[in-house]
Amino acid sequence: MLRDELKSLLDADDSDSAEARVVRVLSERGAVSANEIARATGLARSTISQALAELRGARVIVETPAAEIGRGVGRPAASFALNPRAGTCIGLHLSLDDIRLVAADVSHSVIFEKTVPLGRDYAPAAAVEAARHSLRAACREAGIAWAGVIGVGLSFSGPVAPDGRVQRASIIPTWAGVNLREVFEPALEKPIFADNESNCSAIAEMTWGAAAGVEDFVLFKIDIGVGGAIVSGGRVLSGVAGAGGEFGHMTLDPHGDLCRCGNRGCLELTASLNPAIAAASRFAGREVGVDEFVERAAQGDAGFRRLLADTAEVAGRGLGMIGAILNPGLILIGGRAALAGEALLAPLIASYERHTLIKREEAPPAQRVRIEIAKYPTNHALLGAVALVLRRHGRLSAPVGVAEALP
Amino acid sequence: MLRDELKSLLDADDSDSAEARVVRVLSERGAVSANEIARATGLARSTISQALAELRGARVIVETPAAEIGRGVGRPAASFALNPRAGTCIGLHLSLDDIRLVAADVSHSVIFEKTVPLGRDYAPAAAVEAARHSLRAACREAGIAWAGVIGVGLSFSGPVAPDGRVQRASIIPTWAGVNLREVFEPALEKPIFADNESNCSAIAEMTWGAAAGVEDFVLFKIDIGVGGAIVSGGRVLSGVAGAGGEFGHMTLDPHGDLCRCGNRGCLELTASLNPAIAAASRFAGREVGVDEFVERAAQGDAGFRRLLADTAEVAGRGLGMIGAILNPGLILIGGRAALAGEALLAPLIASYERHTLIKREEAPPAQRVRIEIAKYPTNHALLGAVALVLRRHGRLSAPVGVAEALP
Repeated sequence: MLRDELKSLLDADDSDSAEARVVRVLSERGAVSANEIARATGLARSTISQALAELRGARVIVETPAAEIGRGVGRPAASFALNPRAGTCIGLHLSLDDIRLVAADVSHSVIFEKTVPLGRDYAPAAAVEAARHSLRAACREAGIAWAGVIGVGLSFSGPVAPDGRVQRASIIPTWAGVNLREVFEPALEKPIFADNESNCSAIAEMTWGAAAGVEDFVLFKIDIGVGGAIVSGGRVLSGVAGAGGEFGHMTLDPHGDLCRCGNRGCLELTASLNPAIAAASRFAGREVGVDEFVERAAQGDAGFRRLLADTAEVAGRGLGMIGAILNPGLILIGGRAALAGEALLAPLIASYERHTLIKREEAPPAQRVRIEIAKYPTNHALLGAVALVLRRHGRLSAPVGVAEALP
Repeated sequence: MLRDELKSLLDADDSDSAEARVVRVLSERGAVSANEIARATGLARSTISQALAELRGARVIVETPAAEIGRGVGRPAASFALNPRAGTCIGLHLSLDDIRLVAADVSHSVIFEKTVPLGRDYAPAAAVEAARHSLRAACREAGIAWAGVIGVGLSFSGPVAPDGRVQRASIIPTWAGVNLREVFEPALEKPIFADNESNCSAIAEMTWGAAAGVEDFVLFKIDIGVGGAIVSGGRVLSGVAGAGGEFGHMTLDPHGDLCRCGNRGCLELTASLNPAIAAASRFAGREVGVDEFVERAAQGDAGFRRLLADTAEVAGRGLGMIGAILNPGLILIGGRAALAGEALLAPLIASYERHTLIKREEAPPAQRVRIEIAKYPTNHALLGAVALVLRRHGRLSAPVGVAEALP
């Protein structure tokens, strides 16, 4: 009953009912005060009080003790959250050689996390079977009834079209052209939400991270590839084919080297960590890994720091163009390069300033871009997959019949 | 009474009341059927019927004869529009050496249009005085009471910050740093809405043009400069400092020529019409103007067509990067180059395809970008200035006191 009510409130297509709007704010943000609900919905305080009372009566929401630390003196404001028992969200990240699973309740608490190794170039059927089997076992262990799962979020490394088709499978080529909905929905019998890894990362930063409460920002990832996501008006800009935010494939040099995407001179050929790693390995006379490279650059190794700065210079040029196009107020830097912190950030910001239109000194403080390291620079795609369900983002189709137990 | 009611419905900050939501849809779209209102608001048909009845009773809206042409057989659906007598919107475009004024009623009908020559590098005070004087005269002639004006929209050639400050005055340097609200609001005593010319153009295309009903698109303008606008989720992406969509200042070549913006190698140095016009003039041994150049290229002059194709090639490279970043479903081409039609479009689309990530043949038809000539390629900033008011976009501040007569 409780679950059905929550599901119908989350899925209500419009904002007509105050209850549905309050539930969506709680689903997106976790525990929030009545004041925050008023700011987010624009509803009158009296309307919100009434909706909260009705939702508490129906046990869809619970009152939670307010976090007092850092909130100053005075009576702490009551916070409200969705009743953890009202539903569970599953997140699933399809990674290079394993799949990662996480379950969280609708109040944003993680219940379990699990990794299932599958080996390189695993087939879709193998991933679906592993997901089904592992979820069944993990839910049983954690005491989660499958009927209480309100949706499954999938994070994929490559653009996912609105109908669920994988456009380009950047690290798992066996998935190119596969329709994620068609393979996962019949096996899991739950609404499937899906988006590419970078969009999931941006959603995790919005939900739990450095972009909480921010409606417009850019996530820019530097790792062995370059990617990112754009959030505009609180909504991930997915693009007509699911390929928004593919920053790594801006043509920097139309006569440059061939890229795996089939174009020439893409940004990620020079702005990813690959050229720096190759140069570091040549210099060291042995293979240097990404983690070692980033760590030594962060710790002040002069040569590695120079190589990282060169990466930051090219990346900042691409980012400066993104700045001219979007004029964002916040840019979060993710990917393993971000673990170098200031060693990456300082040359990146200098290069951004050199190449973008609106310079810092021109704009008053409130109109300047902030460029910062993301809260979860390397591991947020899995959290983001959960947040897809919480935010009802990237829903691939109407659910098929809901079974009471995992088949 | 009527006007006050309309103003409060238009300014209602939230979508709580069905009346306010219906009024905003009519303000944004002109005459629409109850079905279209249902699609746009998501409200139930019964709620819409009730709201329409109340608004008709209050004379805020009127029923209009439905356009029957092209709608097939059967009883035509009734359309509704805001009562033309409920309010007037003023649009004002600050152009190179004149200001242009337009008035339209809230049902989207233009009442008058006027151009006031001011000469190059006119001062803000002169423009304000000319606007005040000319509007007074034109409103008197047209029988418009100033009290019925619900707002003034300003279109400016350069980024406008959210507080009204001109960031960079691209063609009228006397305006750099001027706060548009501070100069126009005391003189006109009306709510001031402002945005840069390209954003106004995009809003005109959304309201009356080739993007009517489209929630996500890009406008790309090629003229003696290169610029544009991004619309995401039905909202112009303004950027934190009002400088979103400045496509002309993407750094194509960090060692290229100096641009008037202070950077090197900006897209507009090579993708605007200027290099082609210069080459055409050298070839012809006399000064060739933009209009002549575009016309002869469109009519098939082989040399001019080649020069235009070269412009399109570079522009398409920039546009391809915008494609990788935004993956838009619709790109409208504006500016005087667009008057060449296919002579521009064919090489532009070929270059876009070569440089962007998602190629046409990869995506099913519904996920392909459409690249088309805008409906108003050269003269929509003025219409867009009116639409700023109709859409309540770019409002610079709360209104100061409203006088009954123009001071």
